[in-house]
Amino acid sequence: MNYPSKVLERAVEEMSNLPGVGKRTALRLVLHMLHRPASQTENLADALQHLVQDIEYCEKCHTISDAPICQICANPLRDTSLICVVEDVRDVMAIENTGQYKGVYHVLGGRISPMDGIGPGQLYIDSLLKRIKNEDVAEIIFALSSTMEGDTTAFYLYKVLKNTPVNFSTIARGIGVGDELEYADEATLVRSIQNRIPYVESN
Amino acid sequence: MNYPSKVLERAVEEMSNLPGVGKRTALRLVLHMLHRPASQTENLADALQHLVQDIEYCEKCHTISDAPICQICANPLRDTSLICVVEDVRDVMAIENTGQYKGVYHVLGGRISPMDGIGPGQLYIDSLLKRIKNEDVAEIIFALSSTMEGDTTAFYLYKVLKNTPVNFSTIARGIGVGDELEYADEATLVRSIQNRIPYVESN
Repeated sequence: MNYPSKVLERAVEEMSNLPGVGKRTALRLVLHMLHRPASQTENLADALQHLVQDIEYCEKCHTISDAPICQICANPLRDTSLICVVEDVRDVMAIENTGQYKGVYHVLGGRISPMDGIGPGQLYIDSLLKRIKNEDVAEIIFALSSTMEGDTTAFYLYKVLKNTPVNFSTIARGIGVGDELEYADEATLVRSIQNRIPYVESN
Repeated sequence: MNYPSKVLERAVEEMSNLPGVGKRTALRLVLHMLHRPASQTENLADALQHLVQDIEYCEKCHTISDAPICQICANPLRDTSLICVVEDVRDVMAIENTGQYKGVYHVLGGRISPMDGIGPGQLYIDSLLKRIKNEDVAEIIFALSSTMEGDTTAFYLYKVLKNTPVNFSTIARGIGVGDELEYADEATLVRSIQNRIPYVESN
């Protein structure tokens, strides 16, 4: 592509380094930036600069944070004996959005995936072991994705942690609320029958 | 959405102000930026800052440029008697990529579109009239999109410019090179028959 301006070309090149953003989309976004007030793009540039300069990760749970200890770990009302193990910060945000979970988290930073070259050594497993040893942890909830990699990661964690005096649980798999049985895949249907729970009126 | 960090939230908000980028996509892009070397995101921020600060528009043809006069207008090898009128800089880039056009351009900055609140007053029409008066222009090529707005714009331009001593032409509409007749829409097929050209062996 011949760009009429080096400044334009550089902005397009940098934007197209983002995942899922091709040259054409990048050009469309950059031209949009030229049509809106310059201050808006300056704000964006400033926000990205601050992002990489100021972002911190919680020393305890490794979630993204503005301080050495995140708001969740620092909250005295949270139950620190209950640790929910997740893959990344998006999972923390999804669970937090429900407003129903009162425990704390541990962000692994990914899942074991030999295909992507990610082994246990690249995940925050040692620090989880340290938390179990040093804090008063009663239960670990595995909230990992229901894929081969997620299951492998849960299995590996269980093997590493099983000699510690904590209980392990995993989030329930089954038919989603509002879903029709007819359209559920077989694996999910089987799991939802195997893991059936006693019927209570208020459910 | 509850964000675990203000820095993260601000970056996501600013990214999601771009067209076609929702909150979820913005979060995915921002988390990607945190996983790659910080220097890459600093480069992006710097490129965007330079974009809005340093970008110029050619004083003659209004295309994006690094200087007051763009490379095309400043090129002594280009035929300045031939002006191709386009809607925006993407059209200039598309035609330049063919490497076959030796004239110059005039970027209108959009097309007449009452639905979007764009009237003739917001387009660079006066400066086109001035170019025709002051320069030795022989032909104006309308290279506008083949839509109602594009046609309206060409018609309006023709009405404004018809008393000047220049010739007008419009780019050919017809079956695309490599396309099969069977799949062409009716309007295109009709145009390609109406505007048929003498058969030459080298075509």
